[in-house]
Amino acid sequence: MVNDADLVAAYARLTVQVGVNVQPGQLFLIDAPVEHAPFVRQVAAEAYATGAAFVDVNYADELVRRSHVEHAPDDRLGWSPPWLLERTRTVGRERGAVLIVRGDPRPDVFADLDGTRVAHARMRELGAAKLELTDGLCNWSIVAFPTEGWATKVFGEPDVARLWDAVVTATRLDEPDPVAAWRTHIAELDRRAVALSRHRFDAIRFRGPGTDLTVGLHADGSWQAAQDESNGVEHVANMPTEEVFTTPDARRTEGVVRSTYPLQIQGTVVRGLEIRFEGGRAVELHAHEGEALMRTHIAVDDGAARLGEVALVDRSSRVGKTGLVFYETLFDENAAAHVALGAASPQCVDGARVLSPAERHARGVNQSSIHIDLMIGSREVDVAGITASGEHVPILQRGDWVLR
Amino acid sequence: MVNDADLVAAYARLTVQVGVNVQPGQLFLIDAPVEHAPFVRQVAAEAYATGAAFVDVNYADELVRRSHVEHAPDDRLGWSPPWLLERTRTVGRERGAVLIVRGDPRPDVFADLDGTRVAHARMRELGAAKLELTDGLCNWSIVAFPTEGWATKVFGEPDVARLWDAVVTATRLDEPDPVAAWRTHIAELDRRAVALSRHRFDAIRFRGPGTDLTVGLHADGSWQAAQDESNGVEHVANMPTEEVFTTPDARRTEGVVRSTYPLQIQGTVVRGLEIRFEGGRAVELHAHEGEALMRTHIAVDDGAARLGEVALVDRSSRVGKTGLVFYETLFDENAAAHVALGAASPQCVDGARVLSPAERHARGVNQSSIHIDLMIGSREVDVAGITASGEHVPILQRGDWVLR
Repeated sequence: MVNDADLVAAYARLTVQVGVNVQPGQLFLIDAPVEHAPFVRQVAAEAYATGAAFVDVNYADELVRRSHVEHAPDDRLGWSPPWLLERTRTVGRERGAVLIVRGDPRPDVFADLDGTRVAHARMRELGAAKLELTDGLCNWSIVAFPTEGWATKVFGEPDVARLWDAVVTATRLDEPDPVAAWRTHIAELDRRAVALSRHRFDAIRFRGPGTDLTVGLHADGSWQAAQDESNGVEHVANMPTEEVFTTPDARRTEGVVRSTYPLQIQGTVVRGLEIRFEGGRAVELHAHEGEALMRTHIAVDDGAARLGEVALVDRSSRVGKTGLVFYETLFDENAAAHVALGAASPQCVDGARVLSPAERHARGVNQSSIHIDLMIGSREVDVAGITASGEHVPILQRGDWVLR
Repeated sequence: MVNDADLVAAYARLTVQVGVNVQPGQLFLIDAPVEHAPFVRQVAAEAYATGAAFVDVNYADELVRRSHVEHAPDDRLGWSPPWLLERTRTVGRERGAVLIVRGDPRPDVFADLDGTRVAHARMRELGAAKLELTDGLCNWSIVAFPTEGWATKVFGEPDVARLWDAVVTATRLDEPDPVAAWRTHIAELDRRAVALSRHRFDAIRFRGPGTDLTVGLHADGSWQAAQDESNGVEHVANMPTEEVFTTPDARRTEGVVRSTYPLQIQGTVVRGLEIRFEGGRAVELHAHEGEALMRTHIAVDDGAARLGEVALVDRSSRVGKTGLVFYETLFDENAAAHVALGAASPQCVDGARVLSPAERHARGVNQSSIHIDLMIGSREVDVAGITASGEHVPILQRGDWVLR
């Protein structure tokens, strides 16, 4: 299967047609590690064949970045080059399309470096500008491409063929017509989102080993899934996607939570993460590994210690069915229920998209330059909705979806 | 030799220390094909170790670009993305450093495409902005990295080891101390430049099979070699370099010239090129191969059909000694005397660096968004200087340097 040209082409087609849904005449930006060139070329070819006007690829090189983290002076460590900001703003202005390709070719590249410097090396200003793009300006998607490095992280050996098998399962490339299979899948997730929205829960409560977390919701919030619409174009922002999600009230998270998956972030694995929330804010944080990095992240700005997302996933998930830990958020967050620290998706709160930053803040729609998903679901974690009158309605029980 | 980490590291060191001469605190931009990542990483590591503040790599992907040439709408075909212009302007403003890495991994990538579209796909605005950088704002260099594609072009098979041998010879990496060897070499070329400048030739005449070309020079011009100084930093703009060169008077080229090397340009080989000049302008052009591409290039702007450089190379050249045609201008132009169509180096004309575009034009210092070197020297082409009184003084005879 590995490097099978037909498979790469099919993945590229699914990415361009369903994920990003590139429109004729669009400017189309791709961000990918340099090791993903074989996939990027197929995506670009597919996009141009679909009528894209200009495809720009920004290839990232983690080994160059490693030298940067090691040696750059403090004032340039987290510097966002103005030309990358301009690139981001241009695609926003032009209402273009965006693809981010993950599948880390070197998952441990920063693992032995100073965690504080690693965290400070994030291009925060650029991160914030990119979040604006994904906030209604551009049709966009995130996909992941199998590499030896990623396979080694998952299996302990560079078994790319086995990783491809898992990716094929998770992304429904094993279906006779993957595009049609995605339409069906999207419809099912949409039904769940409609059911959740109809219940108008005041909060969601997670209970399991090490976890008793209540996440307050917005009275005028709604649940969404899979398909997004930006700039008048329907697109699937994450492939795979198995979640239904909403934007919590950033002021109303209470309790403790324990991660159920390791978290791969900036070349470092965070394991055994435990956080206590009070008044919406993370006030205590511990981890067996990667604690310093996490502490630095949640301190980068005011919203970094608050939740911007709560998402539910059941055990019918194609990703969960592989039984793998992918050490790749795009996949792992679709195997288990999760919450995210940092930036919220304003489209889940009525009218929030057109609010100013100050108005969003006042409404409890979280803002931050980070967005870090924490997987907290498992078959041992039950999830219930709490109604305005205090009634608990089961949503997930032992991993099964039970809400109607 | 291939992929020998020590060799790549030594080449990177020579590039950073002698070629670009990266200074502590500098912003350092690298432009390279995506296939050159192994070299680029070494260069970045060396630059950061030297104290560079920020290294940015723009990896080009010729296969993505091929899709662009095939499918892009006309109005985006030669579009220069504003963010790449901003990148170029930023390094100019910051007086940063620039490296361009050649060694085309896919020399024939555009060969079967419409030559006119290929030529129009050049980012002209970006090209012009980059020429400004190399006009005193930044210390910079161009080097070339061996790849299978380039080796195949040279040898008909992907013999990268053999190409490395040639590159090692041409760049003096075979010397016990390459940096010291370069100092000696630069001093020798400088002696030639001083001798040529002292003669104050009014013109240079090339005579050989198919060639009788007289290139008028500036009365206040000078010859330069190897080492350049920009932004107060000494650097070697081309590695290898074997030439002494000056800026001709763009109004005073007369006669006919026949290329002595094939020309590799934008994935197309131009062979058997013959040009007739009148009043400084190319008025007739023929080629056995690539004629349409060349015609399009010399029509892109007013200066594209005039000369911006004349350069002399003798047969002691390390590049010439390899006996190879590299299909890579950086190397081939250092095997043989050459002239260049397009943009001139204003530093060879007294005071021209500070002149406005209009003033440069009035002085016959050529300006263009292109700079295409045409190799016209061989052992059969003699070169003489013509003094103001009309005397012919031999410079190169059968390839030997005879001027004192």
